[in-house]
Amino acid sequence: MLNLMAMQDWRAIVGGNIRRRRQELGLTQEQVALDAEIDLTYMGGIERGKRNPSLLVLVRVATVLRLAPAEILKKPEAD
Amino acid sequence: MLNLMAMQDWRAIVGGNIRRRRQELGLTQEQVALDAEIDLTYMGGIERGKRNPSLLVLVRVATVLRLAPAEILKKPEAD
Repeated sequence: MLNLMAMQDWRAIVGGNIRRRRQELGLTQEQVALDAEIDLTYMGGIERGKRNPSLLVLVRVATVLRLAPAEILKKPEAD
Repeated sequence: MLNLMAMQDWRAIVGGNIRRRRQELGLTQEQVALDAEIDLTYMGGIERGKRNPSLLVLVRVATVLRLAPAEILKKPEAD
């Protein structure tokens, strides 16, 4: 049985990685959503870890954030 | 405009990474599909680069293949 808790954490990890990079680049959610061709409310949901985005959505967001898609799926180093 | 061709390539890259790792581990598609709790035909479609799996499907497959999810989204080194 796959650990469902760990599964849910991945939505929060990916959301955090996207938000952190977006803020690093000084971009708004609106700009990223527009360029990644996704709905603004969906973009907000992804960042809050509430959505389960598909591979191609992840790739589009990564492309807009000038990141390799693998970077979005990395666990942030412990601070 | 995001390069749609590049987008489609990512489905083939991810499918290739999953198939290569599965074969390295000597597992069948059936075994991985069962453990990752996904449909066998869907698993076949992912490996052929025909599907657009969600984040949580990618994480479940990565977990079964004992890989960090980021590994599945890496471009294979040029041979």
